[in-house]
Amino acid sequence: MVGADGIIIERNQLQTYECDGLTALRTLPAAVVLPRSRDEVQAIVRICAQHRIPFVARGAGTGLSGGALPSANGIVMSFARMNRILAVDIPNQRITVEPGVINTHVTQRVAPSGYFYAPDPSSQSVCTIGGNVAENAGGAHCLKYGFTTTHVLALDVILPSGEFAQFGSTTVDAPGYDLTGVFVGSEGTLGVVTAITLRIVKRAETVQVLLAAYNSIAAAGQTVSDIIAASILPAAMEIMDRLSIEAAEASVHPNYPSCDALLLVELDGPDAEVNLHMQQIREICRANGAWEDRLAQSEQERLLVWKGRKAAFAAAGRLAPNYIVQDGVIPRTKLPIILEEIGRMAAETGLRVTNVFHAGDGNLHPIVLYNASIPGQEEIAVDLSIRILHRCVDHGGSITGEHGVGKEKQQALGYMYTEPDLNTMQLVRCAFDPQQIANPDKLFPRPRLCGEKPGIYIPHPLEVAGVAEYF
Amino acid sequence: MVGADGIIIERNQLQTYECDGLTALRTLPAAVVLPRSRDEVQAIVRICAQHRIPFVARGAGTGLSGGALPSANGIVMSFARMNRILAVDIPNQRITVEPGVINTHVTQRVAPSGYFYAPDPSSQSVCTIGGNVAENAGGAHCLKYGFTTTHVLALDVILPSGEFAQFGSTTVDAPGYDLTGVFVGSEGTLGVVTAITLRIVKRAETVQVLLAAYNSIAAAGQTVSDIIAASILPAAMEIMDRLSIEAAEASVHPNYPSCDALLLVELDGPDAEVNLHMQQIREICRANGAWEDRLAQSEQERLLVWKGRKAAFAAAGRLAPNYIVQDGVIPRTKLPIILEEIGRMAAETGLRVTNVFHAGDGNLHPIVLYNASIPGQEEIAVDLSIRILHRCVDHGGSITGEHGVGKEKQQALGYMYTEPDLNTMQLVRCAFDPQQIANPDKLFPRPRLCGEKPGIYIPHPLEVAGVAEYF
Repeated sequence: MVGADGIIIERNQLQTYECDGLTALRTLPAAVVLPRSRDEVQAIVRICAQHRIPFVARGAGTGLSGGALPSANGIVMSFARMNRILAVDIPNQRITVEPGVINTHVTQRVAPSGYFYAPDPSSQSVCTIGGNVAENAGGAHCLKYGFTTTHVLALDVILPSGEFAQFGSTTVDAPGYDLTGVFVGSEGTLGVVTAITLRIVKRAETVQVLLAAYNSIAAAGQTVSDIIAASILPAAMEIMDRLSIEAAEASVHPNYPSCDALLLVELDGPDAEVNLHMQQIREICRANGAWEDRLAQSEQERLLVWKGRKAAFAAAGRLAPNYIVQDGVIPRTKLPIILEEIGRMAAETGLRVTNVFHAGDGNLHPIVLYNASIPGQEEIAVDLSIRILHRCVDHGGSITGEHGVGKEKQQALGYMYTEPDLNTMQLVRCAFDPQQIANPDKLFPRPRLCGEKPGIYIPHPLEVAGVAEYF
Repeated sequence: MVGADGIIIERNQLQTYECDGLTALRTLPAAVVLPRSRDEVQAIVRICAQHRIPFVARGAGTGLSGGALPSANGIVMSFARMNRILAVDIPNQRITVEPGVINTHVTQRVAPSGYFYAPDPSSQSVCTIGGNVAENAGGAHCLKYGFTTTHVLALDVILPSGEFAQFGSTTVDAPGYDLTGVFVGSEGTLGVVTAITLRIVKRAETVQVLLAAYNSIAAAGQTVSDIIAASILPAAMEIMDRLSIEAAEASVHPNYPSCDALLLVELDGPDAEVNLHMQQIREICRANGAWEDRLAQSEQERLLVWKGRKAAFAAAGRLAPNYIVQDGVIPRTKLPIILEEIGRMAAETGLRVTNVFHAGDGNLHPIVLYNASIPGQEEIAVDLSIRILHRCVDHGGSITGEHGVGKEKQQALGYMYTEPDLNTMQLVRCAFDPQQIANPDKLFPRPRLCGEKPGIYIPHPLEVAGVAEYF
């Protein structure tokens, strides 16, 4: 049904698909199929449902939590050939795309009309909208504009039964349950999208980025709180620590000041508003001890500032042979205490941790540096990174801000939520996918609700959460 | 378990609870219980689950779609005694409240710190946060600040099984399914909230409201589109037609200009920003033919402007003995065509329809005027109001923006969504509430998925949507 060029079963070709951005985990799928249309996706899922074949959808494979890791004996559905823009409606600020469309291509399509697509993961030049929907992708500019879920108006979905359904509406506050909301960020466990209607945003008249240099992360963090308290909502507020600054500097030469903490604040809006707010922000920076507060002087310089920030993960490769990019969230005011704790925990293990934050959101990216060739050090690094996540939860935060749970953080999810919370989520999963063929064995801690059997889970919805007693 | 003063079973006392703001539909409940704590709510729901007793939670009973209409032989759980503010965390912009807390009391509690709670339904001085969560309540200022769902960070929930669960997180983008999102707006069909953590917003330095007078609704509507296209996001943009203007004027004397279409634009923000944008907006208004554009000159005058707008529904009582307040949504650019169609359909029936809109959102409130004492006229009015909703759907819109589906629009939901869409929602309902005791016979068109039996639905999750074939 997908044509001879639409299926891959040769072992060496399949290896391309054995992992995503979390390369530590690899599983060879039984086959890869590359559908070209909704009808083909539906036909594929129907066959999977009939024969209980696990499937996982895959965009560009840039995910960092193993969400697109295949099941052994399962199939990977690649959306590489479903990359068309289906409709553009500028007056109502919408665009409808297939899941294989690359994030930045959405902006490129609407830019001539003065619009852009706001969520901007660091991988935006490669990653696809389908994957962004699965992971509820974020990015530096989500502080002002919100995560992917804020920008998804409607979805065409093939349910795990093979049925076609439409969620959401292109107008505000659709009636009934918000299934668009529950689907975005469900990490491939509730079905496969075949079309996505996105909200686009008018490009601002002026964009400016400020670099402020501090002697401590705490002072930079206090600046962030003070800016928010002053009723200013920047497009982005990012903090980098000394190690990350130096690594980024060595890697892409963004001309950052050499300091213990760098705060980047980007403002966008009408010219007069940006100028007014930037003046207030510079005063707040200085009041908190910033000894340099410099504006990027040209669009080229501004883009270079962002290139440095977005290169931070890759640049960590200059600091150590191996590293784990973690992704945790804390209430913004807990920033100083969590940093102190991370520092102390790191010192106890003898490992170094460098920190990059979406500071406005309280979204941390601690990068745990280690050397896998030293026996036992990888285990220590993994353990440290999990303990950092647990501390985030202890402070009322979360085990992931934007990278998802996937295969990597299944157990950590059990630290964050109680049994009834997880049971309720699992009931929803069973409602959509009673056979658990849609990206099985991801997201939830295992073993938990569903009776595990070789190969695939085949739970009975009435076995779970005491529901059976009703019947 | 709720004490002698916590239960009502006398017929004359029960009559208080026989309807909500949709007074045309009335059902006497078997009993009303007034819990004081989460433990009491849990004990009540456990008894309901054990004996299959339908229940509906009730805040202030101001809903307009019959969402709080009792089931015969069911109970009403009134949250009048659960009206405590549980925690206030100003630095992280959060407040945790019980469901019986009145909407404006949230703002009153945080106002001394310079914050407010943004969603502002017209009933905000009476309605409760629990009801706002059930209906995903809106209001004029949701254009800028978003609906209730945007402001709910976390929920304590008693599930229909009697189990306690917590949804959401007080930080961004919680992992797992967004059950907070699916719960908000589920109209009491997925369980009962016992605590709600809300996001609060910093009060702006300056608030200004502009009144612009036009000779046509189309010109006012074009102004709204032009303001959005100019990258300005007002706090509110409202349009009223001549009949509504005159009724509001007669009712609360807001000193509106006498015109065919009145546009209200409210801006909030820093002083300099508001002044800059207001100047641009006045130019846009004049370019679209506004022959008066007047700023409210004092806070008192501003509040009077809003009093007139919020009194519009009640003021319709001056125009006709009876009226139906409808609530539909269209893409903003379809405003002129839907108004023309409403006018034509009204003319064909001989009835008058007056229109009030949250114009920025494309949320219409057509008010169908009629006289119930003229035989057949009520049926004509109901039929006209439903046909207006159908036209909204035909234009890519929705049957409700903020009033909910409830008992009133169950059939209309079937016009908006296809069978698989509704089946999927019903599967989610069955996942939460297999006995369908939580506000049964609301929201979904009946009969649809669940085998209807006298009294309560007792569906079997595996009977629905072909799921049975998997087992």
